[in-house]
Amino acid sequence: MDLPTTVAINEEGPREGFQIEKGPIATTDKIALIDALSDCGLRHVQVASFVNIKHVPGWVDAEAVVEGLSARHGVEYSAVWFNETGLERALAFKDKLTLAGSIAISASEPFGIRNLNRTRAGQVEAMTTFVQSHRRAGVPIGKIIIMAAFGCNYAGDIAPAQVVAAVSDALRVAAATGVVVRDVTLADSMGWATPRRVAAAVGAVRETWPELEIALHLHDTRGQGIACAYEGLRLGVVRFDAAVAGLGGCPFAGQPGAPGNIATEELALLCEEMGIATGIDVEALIEAGRLAERIVGRPLPSAALRSGTYKLFRRKAA
Amino acid sequence: MDLPTTVAINEEGPREGFQIEKGPIATTDKIALIDALSDCGLRHVQVASFVNIKHVPGWVDAEAVVEGLSARHGVEYSAVWFNETGLERALAFKDKLTLAGSIAISASEPFGIRNLNRTRAGQVEAMTTFVQSHRRAGVPIGKIIIMAAFGCNYAGDIAPAQVVAAVSDALRVAAATGVVVRDVTLADSMGWATPRRVAAAVGAVRETWPELEIALHLHDTRGQGIACAYEGLRLGVVRFDAAVAGLGGCPFAGQPGAPGNIATEELALLCEEMGIATGIDVEALIEAGRLAERIVGRPLPSAALRSGTYKLFRRKAA
Repeated sequence: MDLPTTVAINEEGPREGFQIEKGPIATTDKIALIDALSDCGLRHVQVASFVNIKHVPGWVDAEAVVEGLSARHGVEYSAVWFNETGLERALAFKDKLTLAGSIAISASEPFGIRNLNRTRAGQVEAMTTFVQSHRRAGVPIGKIIIMAAFGCNYAGDIAPAQVVAAVSDALRVAAATGVVVRDVTLADSMGWATPRRVAAAVGAVRETWPELEIALHLHDTRGQGIACAYEGLRLGVVRFDAAVAGLGGCPFAGQPGAPGNIATEELALLCEEMGIATGIDVEALIEAGRLAERIVGRPLPSAALRSGTYKLFRRKAA
Repeated sequence: MDLPTTVAINEEGPREGFQIEKGPIATTDKIALIDALSDCGLRHVQVASFVNIKHVPGWVDAEAVVEGLSARHGVEYSAVWFNETGLERALAFKDKLTLAGSIAISASEPFGIRNLNRTRAGQVEAMTTFVQSHRRAGVPIGKIIIMAAFGCNYAGDIAPAQVVAAVSDALRVAAATGVVVRDVTLADSMGWATPRRVAAAVGAVRETWPELEIALHLHDTRGQGIACAYEGLRLGVVRFDAAVAGLGGCPFAGQPGAPGNIATEELALLCEEMGIATGIDVEALIEAGRLAERIVGRPLPSAALRSGTYKLFRRKAA
């Protein structure tokens, strides 16, 4: 088996997770989780969302969270925003956060309309303006994100050709605004990926643009997330998003109670046990996941929180 | 991708699941679940365990369950037993059940001692006596089961050579008792399988005995179960055990709350969405899983119960 030797896992639990929880989560709890994650060997943690608090009240305290977290040397902290106001708010933390924008396009137009309230043409127009704001502010564009890249609860199957068309639109936005982007994240926003669909979409994008580096943002909505991550590894994908304990999910998908993002510790276990370095201390990450569970006050989907690592039982057996 | 065109999934939810639940489960509920499963296109359902009720009080009503279920044409119903008394009880249902014994050997001696209270030599001796009872009763031996085939909470890693040694011992039992067995189930009793370990163990057994047909009994203890099933499919494995809703688990593994068997509907979705026929009506199976959840009175691990099928959303989107 020809798997990568190293992968980078981008931890998105704090940002993804706290926005969908019903009750308000204390700022101190958010900071405590981020600080715990900083001690797990992760290199990149997405910590906040500078979004309209009318739409996402869970992030009313984005500034306080970023101010309060104890930045650890060697860990990059990032945030997300979706308009100029958000970018302005993020800029206040340019010394503490690693700021980078994204060009996000939904491969499914019905999902774009529901989630972003924009047609494809509207997304392209909005993204062009968005990237121009970044250029003026001197903030780089780090990646293209293709939402609903494997299927959509409102459009059904998404063909690889639709993913290629979405990447093409995003690259046109980049070209029109004079930026160069080499990273593309294929996001399974509603849990439609299967190993076969991962292979087809990754293959189609690679065939069209061999120079692009593909990352995977997978959800475990229907229990297929880790199998899809394994297929990604087989295809040589070396960058993945994940969320500790499986925090998060898509509030627009109409599947209450279904898991959201793949759990970081389950992906890290998959890698570690197959000889792929992640830099992550999985046992510390499981402890952070248990903290996340106490914070949100409900069981989170990760099986690894219940089972513990393999190493733990190797020690017990020894 | 060169995947099989058809796989057979052996439903073990009723047998595996009801034995580990704490509260007594009403006989009528067990029968209701089995009858619901009979309408899901499954070809094989394991419905009861004829075991010592002192050790497994959950199966005090094994006879009543088998008597009460409505056998459906085209579905095979099976049961398990571990000694001559159990075999005698099963024989009372030889017209309703498809009776077959197994030669079960633990690849991990520490697990064998804890789970079966027998060393390897003790297992071989007990299995020899057990198979002889079957010959006298005219009951066939259907398969070899290798427990802890991928790792063990009490022994740590299990090498492929240990799996080969366990199969070899089982084949010696078969030879000594004059039976021919061609099916070997590699069971991940405590959730140690990863895709790499599945490939190594399956490869080692196939290399030694190309004539044996290998089946996989996978657990999702650490969230790796469906990824391992996918690896099995890639290797051409066409027989899997699974449990509706993820019922079951190993009471001897020291991991309370961890998932047990892989969920039948998640495995069936993986197959169906990659063009592999299972004969299963996944939506009916998800309904049966929801019934199982109501019966045991606690959330079961299957994500698919929350998410629904892909087909459901294709219909909504159409």
